[in-house]
Formats: sequence, structure tokens, C-alpha cells
Amino acid sequence: MEIESEPVAAQPERSENEAPERGAAALKELVRDDLNRVNQVIIERMQSQVPLIPQLAGHIVAAGGKRLRPVLTLASARMFGYEGARHVNLAATVEFIHTATLLHDDVVDESELRRGLDTANAVWGNKASVLVGDFLFSRAFQLMVADGSLHVLRILSDASATISQGEVHQLLTANNTKTDEQAYLQVIEAKTAALFSAACQVGAVVAERPEAEEHALARFGQGLGIAFQLVDDVLDYSAEQRALGKRIGDDFREGKVTLPIVMAYERGDETEKTFWRRCIEDLDQTDADLEHAMALLNRHDCLTDALERAESYAADAREAMTIFPDGPIKRALLDTLESSLVRTA
Amino acid sequence: MEIESEPVAAQPERSENEAPERGAAALKELVRDDLNRVNQVIIERMQSQVPLIPQLAGHIVAAGGKRLRPVLTLASARMFGYEGARHVNLAATVEFIHTATLLHDDVVDESELRRGLDTANAVWGNKASVLVGDFLFSRAFQLMVADGSLHVLRILSDASATISQGEVHQLLTANNTKTDEQAYLQVIEAKTAALFSAACQVGAVVAERPEAEEHALARFGQGLGIAFQLVDDVLDYSAEQRALGKRIGDDFREGKVTLPIVMAYERGDETEKTFWRRCIEDLDQTDADLEHAMALLNRHDCLTDALERAESYAADAREAMTIFPDGPIKRALLDTLESSLVRTA
Repeated sequence: MEIESEPVAAQPERSENEAPERGAAALKELVRDDLNRVNQVIIERMQSQVPLIPQLAGHIVAAGGKRLRPVLTLASARMFGYEGARHVNLAATVEFIHTATLLHDDVVDESELRRGLDTANAVWGNKASVLVGDFLFSRAFQLMVADGSLHVLRILSDASATISQGEVHQLLTANNTKTDEQAYLQVIEAKTAALFSAACQVGAVVAERPEAEEHALARFGQGLGIAFQLVDDVLDYSAEQRALGKRIGDDFREGKVTLPIVMAYERGDETEKTFWRRCIEDLDQTDADLEHAMALLNRHDCLTDALERAESYAADAREAMTIFPDGPIKRALLDTLESSLVRTA
Repeated sequence: MEIESEPVAAQPERSENEAPERGAAALKELVRDDLNRVNQVIIERMQSQVPLIPQLAGHIVAAGGKRLRPVLTLASARMFGYEGARHVNLAATVEFIHTATLLHDDVVDESELRRGLDTANAVWGNKASVLVGDFLFSRAFQLMVADGSLHVLRILSDASATISQGEVHQLLTANNTKTDEQAYLQVIEAKTAALFSAACQVGAVVAERPEAEEHALARFGQGLGIAFQLVDDVLDYSAEQRALGKRIGDDFREGKVTLPIVMAYERGDETEKTFWRRCIEDLDQTDADLEHAMALLNRHDCLTDALERAESYAADAREAMTIFPDGPIKRALLDTLESSLVRTA
């Protein structure tokens, strides 16, 4: 059975004086060579005779961050002992789809900073960001067409359609306190979890695993994606985060309706509802309002309840993985899930 | 040979008191039943649980106009006597790619009107237009994945990448009098001709024609697309158009650098170059400047020379079609080409 041949020994060994990595960092370390190849493909495939394209694309790819999605594709394939090269191009495809989405997101959100760097739209303008985003989408499709599997094409084109529907849906829930829990969960399932899920599933497809295993990995990615996003939403109101010197309250200042806000609005009395509408819908707010918002979120247990919801999605993701035998990559995937629940950034 | 079985008799007959259609209208008439099916697929596939999507998509699909690109796919397939159904979905795919491009174009150009209707961005805002454009791109890819031909997928994903590169390139040539003829032609080859070409080629692919015929149709579409765009650019400065009551000078007012402007700038003396830079780069212009611009374009034969250039691309398109036997659809395709050279709108 291929599963036992996880090629971890082929990866570079850790030197003794390095601390062992946890969570996503440990997972990344296990597929480090593959990830270097993914970065190479990304650089090659963002080239164009039009020099603005690699400039702008390079900026967003660098600012895009942790490469969590392509790492999921690489790790999923390697968990099954896959020894080919298809997972590298498909991981690059997944990152291109993600990066295109980020470019358009920043235009739509009128963001000026991403991970502490100026956004592409802040540097080159909205027009270039829209069009280079389209280019990266097209490149993603070229890469997956070159892979040649209609099954993979179906998974990733479906994920793309789901993401864009989620983006439009999010536009309608933004600054809208009438958003209910179901609508919020639909948005993050579409916007975040669909690509996590597809990224994992594709790893099983290239390793030619049976449908049940493919779907188990898709379900793992789905649960991980939702849990990841829910924790992200909670962190934006976390007093512990602020104690660590992290910036909090960005979602509040933008009037984003995340699960804690949905819960606080539902559980609040009329005075509180009026407060939320003023801050979130009218964006009429001060720094003191953020303090009051955090107090209300705690009074109604919204942060702990949102984390509990995250834990229930994580439990489903964990459950999905039980069909796979133990091994270092499986352990690192599960550890990535656990770390996403307790992370501080 | 399948070519002789062009199913024209299957199309509804014209009643006696209708004037015979010419050009694109005649071509459309020949594939009218197919085009009705394409419109049906478009309506079905723009549906979504998120109601803003069909609203906005419906608006742009309606405003998008003449359905010339899907008609090219339908006609190309039917010219070979193709009797299947794949050309309908692929024609819808081509129209979705075109429509997504229009949505993003209108955002980038800050347009408020398209064919006399408010643009989608004017009605629903830029954010919704960007995201629904992404949705239509994704739907296009889902449709072609459902078709299942990797060859078709390669043609259309390559065309998409070419279009988006052309769009970024155009952003760099806009309001830039340093644009030379080569750069201008590269932009319209990428932005307009690539999809015309792919639309025609796909018709040959579904009819399973040999590579030489596929490439002949691609070349026809390429020449038609460039000629079409060049004539469009000339019409914006046409005194005859104005005499017919048509609005002219839009490109001038936006500072678009089209072939007539490239030629006039190259051929102008220093005073004229200063004039063009003021009007096109600084957008510092009055109605009298449009009159002066038209006088300069005529003095340097820029409109007639640009039309001559269009004619040379049309000649190449005509030449490409010589390998096909005569028939009503071939004649209508060629007539579409001729009409594009002498059209007045």
C-alpha cells in the first residue's frame, strides 16, 4: 500500500539546535523541497511580455503569505507516497487562484495594507489589480489544463465558481447586521473553505486514491478552512492578542459582520442592537466603541461560542482523517488543524 | 464530406416581405435556432443562490450586444455540417468570457454607459462588477470543463490569458502618445482578436476537422477581429458617422491611443505633437480640439491608412477561407468580414 511510503526521509533533516516546528510550519517543513519547486513554477508562470504583470503579481505573491493552500496540496499527495510531479503544478495553480482572489478582494475592500505591506492596489491602482488578477486566474486555468486531468479541472473550476459566489454574497452581508449565522457560514464555506477543501482533494486525485479517500481529504480541508476562518474572526476581538502587541479591531472598523457580531446582535437588547447598527452599518464609531463592543462580545459569550463552533468543524475534519493510517504527514496535517484552533496570529 | 451537409434548410425561412440581411445579421439568421439555445444556456448558467449575480449578469449579457463571438462558434461548427450539441455550450462559454471582460473593462475605464444603457458598475458599483465578472469567468471554465475536451480547454484558457495580458498592456498604452504601431497592434490582437480567433477555431474542433482547417478558421477569426477593431477605431473620428447623427469622439475624449492617433502623432510636427500630448495625455481639451484632431487625421491620411491596414488583415482572413468549399455559411462568414469593413456602426 502506497500510504506507507511517505517520502519524509527524502526531505532535508533538521539540524539539532533548531526547535521543532509546530502546526503549519512543521507541515511546510515536511514538504520544503516540493514547496521550493512550487515557488519556482509561480515565478516562471507569472512572467509576461507586459512587465507590469510580473511586478504586480510578484508583489501579491510575496505579500500573500504562508502558502498554506499549496502546502495542503503537496502534503496530501505526499501523505499517499505520491512520487510524481503533478502536485507541484497543481499546488501552484491553487496559489494562483488564491492570489487572484486576494488582488480582487483588496480592490473590493479598498484595503491599503496586507500583512504590513502596501496592497497592490495601493501601489499600482485598482485597474491594474483587477486586470492582473484576471491574468492570474487565466494562468491558473492554463496550468491545470496542462495537467490534463478533467477530474482535477472539475474540482478547481467548481471551487473557483463557489469562491466568486461567496465573494458576492459577502458583499451583501458586509455592514449588514441582518446577516444570520447561516448566511455567515455560507460565506466562509464558499470564500475560504472551498479552496482549502479543493487543495486537499487534488492531492488525493494525483495519488489516484479511491473516491472515499478523496472525499475524506476534501472534508478535512473543508473543516480546517471553516475552523481557520472562525478563529481568525475571533482573534480580531481578542484581548490576549492586544496584550501581545497585535493590532485588533480591523474587522470592527470596517464594519465586517463576522460570527461574533452575528451572535452579539441576536443576543443583544434594543439598546445594544442600536449600538451595533451605528458602528457596523453606519460606521459611526470611536475607539471607545471598540472597547464597548469587546465587552458586549464577552458578556454574551460570543467569542467562546464562536470558538466552540470552530472546534465542532475541527472535530469533523479530525473524524474525516481517521480512515488514513498513522504517519508523519497525517500527524502534521492534524497538528495544523489543532494549531489553527489555538493560534495567536 | 460533411461540409456539404450545412443544415441551412433546418433554419426558419425568411418571409417574403423581409429585406435580405447582410453581414453579421445574415450570419446570425443562419444559426438562429442554435443562438436561441445559447441564450437559454446563458440564462440557466448565470443563476445562483445569490440573487445579485443573475441581476447584474443579466444586465451585462443584455447590454453586451450582438453575440458576434458565439455566432462565430455556432457558424464555424455548422459550416462543417456539425449536428451535435457541443457548439451551443461552447458558444455560451465564449460569450461568458466576453461578458466577464466587458464587466471588468467598464470598471477599469470608469464607463457609465454601454450601448446607451447604464453600465453595471454605474448601477451596482465597481465591487459587484469585479466579483460578478469573476463569477462569469468561473462559469465559463465550468462550462468548458463539462464539455470535456482538453483541446478546447487549451484554446480557450490560452485565449483568456492572452486577453488579460492585452488588457494590462492597454492600460499602459492608454493616454500614452509614445505608443507605437506595434504596441497598438499587439493590444488589439490580444484584447479583441484572440477571442474571435478562439471562437472560430472551437467550431472546427467540435466538428473534428483536421488541424489545417482548424488553423484556417483561427486565422480567419484573427483577421476578422483585428479588422473589426481597426474599423471601430476609425469610426470614432468619422465625419460620415457624425452626418448620420452618430456620436463620435468618445475615444478622443478618453485619451485612447488608437491606430489613427499613433499615425498622426508619428507624422505630426512639434506643434502637432504638443497638441496631441495636451489632448491625449493631459486630457486638457475642448470640442474645438476634436475638430482640429479630425483635420489633422485627414491631413496626414491617418483614417484612410488605418482602413487600409484593416483591409490587409481582412485579406488574410479571406485567404484563410479559400481551403473551404463554397456554401451558405462560408459565404455569410465572408460577408460578415466584408460588412465589417464598410459598416457604419
